[in-house]
Amino acid sequence: MDTLTVKTTARQQFVDITMQVARFIADSGIANGICYLFCPHTTAGITFNENWDPDVQHDMALNLDAIAPQRPDFRHAEGNSPAHVKTGLMGSDHHVFVENGEPVLGRWQGIYFAEFDGPRTRKIFLKIVAT
Amino acid sequence: MDTLTVKTTARQQFVDITMQVARFIADSGIANGICYLFCPHTTAGITFNENWDPDVQHDMALNLDAIAPQRPDFRHAEGNSPAHVKTGLMGSDHHVFVENGEPVLGRWQGIYFAEFDGPRTRKIFLKIVAT
Amino acid sequence: MDTLTVKTTARQQFVDITMQVARFIADSGIANGICYLFCPHTTAGITFNENWDPDVQHDMALNLDAIAPQRPDFRHAEGNSPAHVKTGLMGSDHHVFVENGEPVLGRWQGIYFAEFDGPRTRKIFLKIVAT
Repeated sequence: MDTLTVKTTARQQFVDITMQVARFIADSGIANGICYLFCPHTTAGITFNENWDPDVQHDMALNLDAIAPQRPDFRHAEGNSPAHVKTGLMGSDHHVFVENGEPVLGRWQGIYFAEFDGPRTRKIFLKIVAT
Repeated sequence: MDTLTVKTTARQQFVDITMQVARFIADSGIANGICYLFCPHTTAGITFNENWDPDVQHDMALNLDAIAPQRPDFRHAEGNSPAHVKTGLMGSDHHVFVENGEPVLGRWQGIYFAEFDGPRTRKIFLKIVAT
Repeated sequence: MDTLTVKTTARQQFVDITMQVARFIADSGIANGICYLFCPHTTAGITFNENWDPDVQHDMALNLDAIAPQRPDFRHAEGNSPAHVKTGLMGSDHHVFVENGEPVLGRWQGIYFAEFDGPRTRKIFLKIVAT
């Protein structure tokens, strides 16, 4: 198991980690397989999204804020319940295929670390299995 | 890695791909394993849902429209930000268990390709690993 | 493939299944690998969330009720469309890494069975693969 570190700089932020994942895959020496990702945090997740126009991440953040706002009936004393909800919606565990030593992604697709309670220094766990 | 092709016929549509996935599994000759799916698009995803009553897909689409509508503050110039949001909510990467050469699904469960910016011709990537 | 059974006691309920998953992993004798989970129901899913303050689960449930309420335009005659929507949002298929015979989770992270149409007796399918 390997670990990526991501330093986020805002409360809510989508950080493109595609290059870091690609480097991990290249370093593994595995040509064909599956690369698994796991985010061990409860207020940050991982998602796939468009990596061409940054406005897509802006709009995703805006929509997540709209459906997971601070709510008057929330009880969690830390005040970051929206971040927990968003994490559940994006997911903590993902996988990407590996072919020819590279992650298989669509033309406009990137892998994003999704920070919902930053800024913080975060970890992503990785495993790769040959297929 | 193998590829399924799905032609969608509407802007938003849930297409039952269970039979196509089952055929891929059967053709692989693997009796017991895990079948992985990956959708390389940023405005379409994959999800599991009830395959008995089509009204369930109707209601899922209705609810996704309600929580990911066109919003006045969206910036993405292509105008399909709701499709990007819905894709993030449904997910691009999924797996299903394989036993006795067949996908293991619940009695009412099907595998759905979730189109959010159609109609288009779409791809789903597949891998199967014996366990 | 192995099966966990979960008895839920409420309509909507997050049940911490971390210990059951950890026991399955220990019993497998596999030290390092990936444990896959699959929920074969269409009105219940699996998610990762904070396992320290139960208020986080309360707030997650509250937020899911807010974004997937009973809607007047729903058609599904069984009346449990909100449960189908919530299941799609949380996901049916997940994985967790295994190191030293234990699931790799963050300090505050647990694995939750997410009941949305209970109370019922439910199943979770499990597979573990050495890496």
